[in-house]
Amino acid sequence: MKTLLEAIRPTTFIESQKLRDYLDLDLTLASETFQHTGSFKFRAAYNLAVNVENDGILTASSGNFGQALAYACKLTGKKCIVVMPETSAQVKIEAIKSYGATVDLVDTKTVKRSDRVAQLAAENPDFYVASAYDDLFVIDGNASIGDELANRDFDVIISPVGGGGLISGISKGLCRNGHQAKLFGAEPLLANDAAKSLKAGEIVSNETEPMTIADGARTLSLGKHNWEIIKSGVAEIIEVSDEKIAEAVRLLFGLANLKSEPTGALTLGAVLAGKEKFAGKKVCAIVSGGNVDAGIYAEILLSNK
Amino acid sequence: MKTLLEAIRPTTFIESQKLRDYLDLDLTLASETFQHTGSFKFRAAYNLAVNVENDGILTASSGNFGQALAYACKLTGKKCIVVMPETSAQVKIEAIKSYGATVDLVDTKTVKRSDRVAQLAAENPDFYVASAYDDLFVIDGNASIGDELANRDFDVIISPVGGGGLISGISKGLCRNGHQAKLFGAEPLLANDAAKSLKAGEIVSNETEPMTIADGARTLSLGKHNWEIIKSGVAEIIEVSDEKIAEAVRLLFGLANLKSEPTGALTLGAVLAGKEKFAGKKVCAIVSGGNVDAGIYAEILLSNK
Repeated sequence: MKTLLEAIRPTTFIESQKLRDYLDLDLTLASETFQHTGSFKFRAAYNLAVNVENDGILTASSGNFGQALAYACKLTGKKCIVVMPETSAQVKIEAIKSYGATVDLVDTKTVKRSDRVAQLAAENPDFYVASAYDDLFVIDGNASIGDELANRDFDVIISPVGGGGLISGISKGLCRNGHQAKLFGAEPLLANDAAKSLKAGEIVSNETEPMTIADGARTLSLGKHNWEIIKSGVAEIIEVSDEKIAEAVRLLFGLANLKSEPTGALTLGAVLAGKEKFAGKKVCAIVSGGNVDAGIYAEILLSNK
Repeated sequence: MKTLLEAIRPTTFIESQKLRDYLDLDLTLASETFQHTGSFKFRAAYNLAVNVENDGILTASSGNFGQALAYACKLTGKKCIVVMPETSAQVKIEAIKSYGATVDLVDTKTVKRSDRVAQLAAENPDFYVASAYDDLFVIDGNASIGDELANRDFDVIISPVGGGGLISGISKGLCRNGHQAKLFGAEPLLANDAAKSLKAGEIVSNETEPMTIADGARTLSLGKHNWEIIKSGVAEIIEVSDEKIAEAVRLLFGLANLKSEPTGALTLGAVLAGKEKFAGKKVCAIVSGGNVDAGIYAEILLSNK
């Protein structure tokens, strides 16, 4: 069986002169859109699948983690159940099924995903129950991108924030390499629990799943393991409006030839929301994934007309 | 001044499991969409700009070569004039202007681009007149991608064909490395002069500029220098309908997270047009560029609904 480093695809660094000129900023994109299953989540999922001893893994995921875990379980010969909100992008639901995993759809207006996971866990006692972010194997898997970033001379790194799995992994990876880059989070304004948490000094939750277009960041709160790293390892969480997220999707398309899902464009959205704080710095923006329905993507492209 | 190898960005190899499963084929994409100026043409343009002694370069281009030459001239301190059809994608016209080059638009229904180039050449006798494909510096620049492909174990390589600049460069690059891959061309059915030429054993021209959606392949005929290489170095030219090109654009979007312009998707279109001939082979499809207007791209994405 392949090790994590053998299994993952290194991130794709993209230095678009057009985007740099447009922003007047020394910006590099680190794109995980070509990672296996189309997002960084494969790093976490594979690390989990090779490390847990159970024959099956159960998780809740708004899509990319479920897809990644389904594929990682296929590669490692494990069973997989993924609990998803009914509102998840259709392309993500179909992808998970195509890897042979079981998809369990819930109406998150009436049932909490965590309650449904608990119910399924009781029915499948032999399964490992994995959080898409609040899990040490997940954080360790995501730390692999931190290792890659640590080989480059960045002053600032910006990561999307949902449950905090990616940013805490990057923080861990940078830290263990002694890299001094300042780490920023980029979070949807409509789902700004992490920004509130960092200001309050404790985990603050959203009351309901926030309906931002950044569907990978529709989480209720940061995970506890993630928070332990984020509270000291992250300089600031920048809140990004859905309008700025959409604008960032269009700029990645138009100036960098990069297809990004809205969650992946959060980091460029954070730059658009206030680029003066990055002036003169070598900035890296993580584009965390590329999985978006064609209809939604076309709508975003055309909404600027 | 940077050498060609220092100036170019290596091609981006993408191995999408979803695309492989969909096609049941061992397919690797070699994407030039993240090359400087968004297409392989920068390789040719930079090689030209560093090698010619003139202070200015004049060319006709349906867009990507113009953009690449404009940027290469900016980097090397040369003047640049680009003759383009009025029907060129707006995003390409604007990009060329943004690099400080002069754009000269012609109505190709009434004036041949070559006639307009001759007129401008007479007015600017100090300029080097560069073909976007029929030029040894251009072919040599494009051969750099052949060098990269020669490092990999492909049985088959498929390249888009317009004027023949890319495929002749790849052929040259493979040949000088002693690589034995079989080289196929992929050409729009609506602009199938190269396929006709290979069958006839001599250059056959289109009568008018063909209005395929693959706007990078709207050429009247292969170049003479290109033909000399293609006639012996290319196994077959596959003719691809505009419908298959559009389907390929959608598959690259949906299964590989790759934004491609229609011309770039010609090679996957060629696979769709008859994948049985590639069964059991290690196939590489060149995605030559990613520059496409948002409106046209959204229309292609939605035309499958």
